[in-house]
Amino acid sequence: MTTAVTKPLHVVEDLRAALPGRVETDAEHLLTYTSDRSGHRSPGVPLAVVYPRSVDDVQAVCRIASSSGTPIVTRGAGTGLAGGAIAGPGEIALSMRDMDQVLEVSEENWLAVVQPGILNGELNHALASRGLWWAPDPASKDISTVGGNIAMNAGGLLCAKYGVTREAVLALKVVLADGRLISVGHRTVKGVTGYDLCALMIGSEGTLGVIVECTLKLRPLVRGEIVTIGAFFDSIESAAAAASEVTRNGHVPAIMELMDRRTLECVSRFIGEDLVGQGDAYLLIQCDGDGAMTTAQLISDSIRAAGGRAEATADPTESQRLVDLRRQAFPAMETLGHVLVEDIAVPRDRLSEAFAKIRELEERYGLVIPTACHAGDGNLHPTFVFQGETVPEQVWVAAGELFTYALELGGTLTGEHGIGVLKRAWLADELGPTQYELQRQIKAVFDPANILNPGKVFG
Amino acid sequence: MTTAVTKPLHVVEDLRAALPGRVETDAEHLLTYTSDRSGHRSPGVPLAVVYPRSVDDVQAVCRIASSSGTPIVTRGAGTGLAGGAIAGPGEIALSMRDMDQVLEVSEENWLAVVQPGILNGELNHALASRGLWWAPDPASKDISTVGGNIAMNAGGLLCAKYGVTREAVLALKVVLADGRLISVGHRTVKGVTGYDLCALMIGSEGTLGVIVECTLKLRPLVRGEIVTIGAFFDSIESAAAAASEVTRNGHVPAIMELMDRRTLECVSRFIGEDLVGQGDAYLLIQCDGDGAMTTAQLISDSIRAAGGRAEATADPTESQRLVDLRRQAFPAMETLGHVLVEDIAVPRDRLSEAFAKIRELEERYGLVIPTACHAGDGNLHPTFVFQGETVPEQVWVAAGELFTYALELGGTLTGEHGIGVLKRAWLADELGPTQYELQRQIKAVFDPANILNPGKVFG
Repeated sequence: MTTAVTKPLHVVEDLRAALPGRVETDAEHLLTYTSDRSGHRSPGVPLAVVYPRSVDDVQAVCRIASSSGTPIVTRGAGTGLAGGAIAGPGEIALSMRDMDQVLEVSEENWLAVVQPGILNGELNHALASRGLWWAPDPASKDISTVGGNIAMNAGGLLCAKYGVTREAVLALKVVLADGRLISVGHRTVKGVTGYDLCALMIGSEGTLGVIVECTLKLRPLVRGEIVTIGAFFDSIESAAAAASEVTRNGHVPAIMELMDRRTLECVSRFIGEDLVGQGDAYLLIQCDGDGAMTTAQLISDSIRAAGGRAEATADPTESQRLVDLRRQAFPAMETLGHVLVEDIAVPRDRLSEAFAKIRELEERYGLVIPTACHAGDGNLHPTFVFQGETVPEQVWVAAGELFTYALELGGTLTGEHGIGVLKRAWLADELGPTQYELQRQIKAVFDPANILNPGKVFG
Repeated sequence: MTTAVTKPLHVVEDLRAALPGRVETDAEHLLTYTSDRSGHRSPGVPLAVVYPRSVDDVQAVCRIASSSGTPIVTRGAGTGLAGGAIAGPGEIALSMRDMDQVLEVSEENWLAVVQPGILNGELNHALASRGLWWAPDPASKDISTVGGNIAMNAGGLLCAKYGVTREAVLALKVVLADGRLISVGHRTVKGVTGYDLCALMIGSEGTLGVIVECTLKLRPLVRGEIVTIGAFFDSIESAAAAASEVTRNGHVPAIMELMDRRTLECVSRFIGEDLVGQGDAYLLIQCDGDGAMTTAQLISDSIRAAGGRAEATADPTESQRLVDLRRQAFPAMETLGHVLVEDIAVPRDRLSEAFAKIRELEERYGLVIPTACHAGDGNLHPTFVFQGETVPEQVWVAAGELFTYALELGGTLTGEHGIGVLKRAWLADELGPTQYELQRQIKAVFDPANILNPGKVFG
């Protein structure tokens, strides 16, 4: 036997000895861990998948990995859109699935301490009876884990008003590559002791450590009525201008979403209702909390003044119908073929330019790119539709042009999905060479042997 | 001449050549830079103080400093309470005073781009006419700089509702120790490209780089009426319990402040009004925005149920009177002697225990420690009064016990003032040895020669 074969066998044996009954090596079982929802797949199955049940278990896995130089790919529910948690040959997939307990809820301190494997939706279900909620709201919330949301700094529909994941985490326990445990952040709302390593961990995509416990900042459930506005416009430009006007007037809706004509075409077919006949763009706005009705009235007036055909309702069923038009966007797009879901963000007042660029790319490359957008924070999801199993080259070329254009507009490559393997080729374009090098050095401080999710983010 | 003398002379000459007319070496002038508001003073004056007017100027200073191994102490307005910006022998004081321009305000994007030397109050004055504000609200806001607020991650009265400085900064331009310039963060509301070095810079107390441009996240000015509640209680325990109840009931007041009997004694003497006769503790609450009156009514009811004598008003003059009782706390304490203003934070439901510990320390060490508290986020300012120029040993011993106790309660050494030189002896107690070492290594990534504010934070 050569060393190359002996070593992996030894690693698996060591894992089995340390975590009896928690190590799987069945090839079919392992296949799940080679992909996520990005369309990327690693070139082969990992060595093993391990299901720790405790911090001690995770520390044992990290010690085995670091002493043998074996890479670890930490995994939540595998709902990522950037290939950040796909494991390949020679790697250990570290699934947090079975560390899914709520350890504490404090109503006085508006905090919860949870294990990372709990689903966002399950946690919020448990919190609701106590009048609390955790605000991060990715579209995947019913099927994605809290730990995954934190590792990606997940966004969602509610960010403009309620913030992204970074604003909803107080503290973390993290196992380092070599198995040591650190506690970063504070249980208190304020705290300025040393560098903010908690913020550094959030969005680090499994490259700096393994998150094993999360102290979350909660909010009281929003009371009062919810008012929803749906408005059709004759053009995406007028809809984007109306959305800008909402912000300029000082309103902070809970939700402000925009869909272009291509998306309306998809949804029309999907739900069997003629939306395109009603307009070329759809703006969805939801107001909640104190004063929701008054604010919604002011917003409706300004939408009508901007040429929108606005319908406002406080009726829950009717409200749900207006919101569902937006929620159906991705399922509807997926019926067209395979999709590459992109995720640029631009300053709020540059939305029209971003949409125009997407139309131009569609024409020039013969592509179909329906685009929905979190208009409240300038985050667009241009969704490149393609046929076949792999992303065609011209889709990548067009996507690359779009990334570059987003940077030109003062925006970013990724608003909420992360870099993973999908965008690592463009990372240095956004960071610049000096910052790119600093970030690599920070990675080396935490993980000198580069065993934590190697090849992700930095490529 | 020995090298030790030649080198500094050379540095000053180089600085004068690079920034003609912007370098001061007059000893009396330099004296200002040896202290801040912490009561700490460095052992002598720095080599020089430099007043850059541009990013290029700062880069030139950093190049001279790094090539000669000369430490740089970046300085805002010198209002710090932890000795984080005091400069001493052999060091360059880098004053950001003259980089104080507003470079851009975007009403569509709710952002402002400013130079770091602008005063928080001046910026907010300029923003008000456009219906916007920058939320960080340290007590020093009229005399402290935006750059200083960011370097310390400043807090204030409004944090429980409107967040700390970290939540109000989108992006920064930073000059590194060797003079290279990086841009961290995003102009967009969302962005998850690589590690969050913007958050890492916030609160780093001048040890990682020199902040030369700040892209700030603004909010629309809060509209509607402001309702203020002032309530006297028979004990600090019942007042703290009432504050906890406000949170438990899901209310988020803009301000929630608590003062103990010792503080009321000081303020009584200072303003010539008998507050102590009205109770042993004072709770100040302010509600703003939509629904303020309804919320204030509910809060007043719960305060009365908890034994508080609550007075609620929407009248601006009367409101100001209730707020001023709190705003006078520190000026009133300062009439008693010199003060060491402490800054622990504890989980909101442990306030009573923290107050009890402070009373116990007063008795055991024969000290006077009036304490005001941001009750909305558990941040206490125990203010150790002493006579004479230097902090007596037993004050340090008592303060040390209090820090340890704050950690035992699940709290932190410093909620909003920073570590500086004041608390560096306790830093490792809170971080633990592993994280302490990681933080030092991160410092070394940014500043391998340790010329940026050496001796601060890490000691």
